[in-house]
Amino acid sequence: MPASSPSSHSPTLPGLSPPTHADVIAAAGRLKGHAVVTPLLESPLLNDQLGGRLLVKAEVLQRTGSFKFRGAFNRISQIPEVERANGVVAFSSGNHAQGVAAAARMLGIKATIVMPSDAPAIKIANTRAWGAEVVLYDRWTEDREAIGARISSETGATLVRPYDDPHVMAGQGTIGLELADQADAAGATLDAVLAPCGGGGMISGIALALSGRLPETKIFAVEPEGFDDTRRSLVAGQRLANTPGASSFCDALLAATPGILTFAVNGEHLAGGFAVSDAEVGRAMAVARDHFKLVVEPGGAVALAAVIAGKVAIEGRTLAVVCSGGNVDPAVYQRALSEFGI
Amino acid sequence: MPASSPSSHSPTLPGLSPPTHADVIAAAGRLKGHAVVTPLLESPLLNDQLGGRLLVKAEVLQRTGSFKFRGAFNRISQIPEVERANGVVAFSSGNHAQGVAAAARMLGIKATIVMPSDAPAIKIANTRAWGAEVVLYDRWTEDREAIGARISSETGATLVRPYDDPHVMAGQGTIGLELADQADAAGATLDAVLAPCGGGGMISGIALALSGRLPETKIFAVEPEGFDDTRRSLVAGQRLANTPGASSFCDALLAATPGILTFAVNGEHLAGGFAVSDAEVGRAMAVARDHFKLVVEPGGAVALAAVIAGKVAIEGRTLAVVCSGGNVDPAVYQRALSEFGI
Repeated sequence: MPASSPSSHSPTLPGLSPPTHADVIAAAGRLKGHAVVTPLLESPLLNDQLGGRLLVKAEVLQRTGSFKFRGAFNRISQIPEVERANGVVAFSSGNHAQGVAAAARMLGIKATIVMPSDAPAIKIANTRAWGAEVVLYDRWTEDREAIGARISSETGATLVRPYDDPHVMAGQGTIGLELADQADAAGATLDAVLAPCGGGGMISGIALALSGRLPETKIFAVEPEGFDDTRRSLVAGQRLANTPGASSFCDALLAATPGILTFAVNGEHLAGGFAVSDAEVGRAMAVARDHFKLVVEPGGAVALAAVIAGKVAIEGRTLAVVCSGGNVDPAVYQRALSEFGI
Repeated sequence: MPASSPSSHSPTLPGLSPPTHADVIAAAGRLKGHAVVTPLLESPLLNDQLGGRLLVKAEVLQRTGSFKFRGAFNRISQIPEVERANGVVAFSSGNHAQGVAAAARMLGIKATIVMPSDAPAIKIANTRAWGAEVVLYDRWTEDREAIGARISSETGATLVRPYDDPHVMAGQGTIGLELADQADAAGATLDAVLAPCGGGGMISGIALALSGRLPETKIFAVEPEGFDDTRRSLVAGQRLANTPGASSFCDALLAATPGILTFAVNGEHLAGGFAVSDAEVGRAMAVARDHFKLVVEPGGAVALAAVIAGKVAIEGRTLAVVCSGGNVDPAVYQRALSEFGI
């Protein structure tokens, strides 16, 4: 299949359909008291520089250091009692791994996580520290979905997909509900919301959350350059894959194609997408450090990068961005800031 | 006067007496909707390592990047209408400067800030960005209090002291009220609270806040080595000065002696103090980065450092620390983490 051909005109996942706004509301109920209601931050000095109002949803402060805990907990907490003894299995480059491991530990369920051997060391170490068994694989020669499916069929463990799962999408969508409440409390009317996009789980959940609340707010996906499959798919009106061979230090956002369920939502609800370079991401990481006092990993900083790099107009407008994760190896963080940030 | 002799047995500030618990409650009312209710963060993985429960009050997320906004706003918002046109003046190494500048801007009052010429560049730049006029002085040859008093007498501007002011102390104390509420919501019973201490404004306010709420909770001041005047004064039962000549990169905590009003409170309410080295602070800055995703300046990290360095027992106990500020020059931050943190 050529890289940029549609992978399917109307693909489906057997037995699964996208969640609804009501599912996001229900997820918020399940997460209450378990997930952190992360703050919506603002820097008046940065606003002065930008000539508009920028609100930052600080998901780096979420349990496990990224938004992924929300979807994982919403999914795992709904596994029927009789199936829990078989555990859960997931494949992930790191943030979903930690989210699943933490949610499973909180719910007393064994977790096995399939991770690429070149994932950030901090992500592998923390996944193990949460009590999960980590199975490493080679990103270039092995198929993580096949490994996950094999473990699931051998052990009966429930597979917790990173994005193409309605409960996971609904869980991530709780970010959007909080964002709407918090913007309201801050007296802000959101012209647009931008969020990082890998497989599209978070942005689709946010879109569903806001569709019932803020129908006038435009929602944009932001991806690394070379991995802007969702941006291009939105333009084409069908799921396109990335051209192999690109590289980016945004390890969390390297999905090859939009998800099936996520694109069903995103194709309908998103206003478009933006792609940002590693240098633009590095500068955004420095802005997060200096103006918001937040440590943001590369993949977590792409939406902020789109604003700082001027991809979207902010003058006289109010934008919100999600800074979605902060799990970056110290050496990578230091190098990114030294190279691009100062 | 020898450096370690008492500066006075029972000194007073004319017309001023320390605030009460009720004053802290009143301050919280004034700050509502103006200051950020900063989150109380927790890292289960770090708790596992420490064998206890550690809660982090993230004042780096406060408006202007440090707790100082609270006291400044509580003070300035009480200036009578007829005196507001004369403006305010303050002396500060940087965080109080920004707090006063931001509060003054929000209240439509002109601010003049006297800052040492070697203050962190980010602190000077941000103070100007908040609209204040900055007057630089030489820390080694000039007397900032005299410069502040002169400007005040020439212009009629109200002097906003950095800590020895009951309204400033009460404002900082609102941290303690939030901490008590948030610990309660987290099901935590606090064995002890540790906070950074320069002149002692924040720790005294927290002590007053908790005295009516959590009388069993021990409260400790943490200072840089060589600047542990409050720790030694608590032992001696009277205000002692630091021995000149010490150095520390904790620029926010270099006060020469405890304040008069602050020590009146601290002498009665604190359980003691700890001193930490620059290396211990650097490691705490790395812990804040890796476990809490927070950028903490050296002076803001001393209380966390006391816990991480094992100065206070945490095994089987619940401690809270205030990370009080995040205004660190990028190069200093990078260097501290490279030298001590990774």
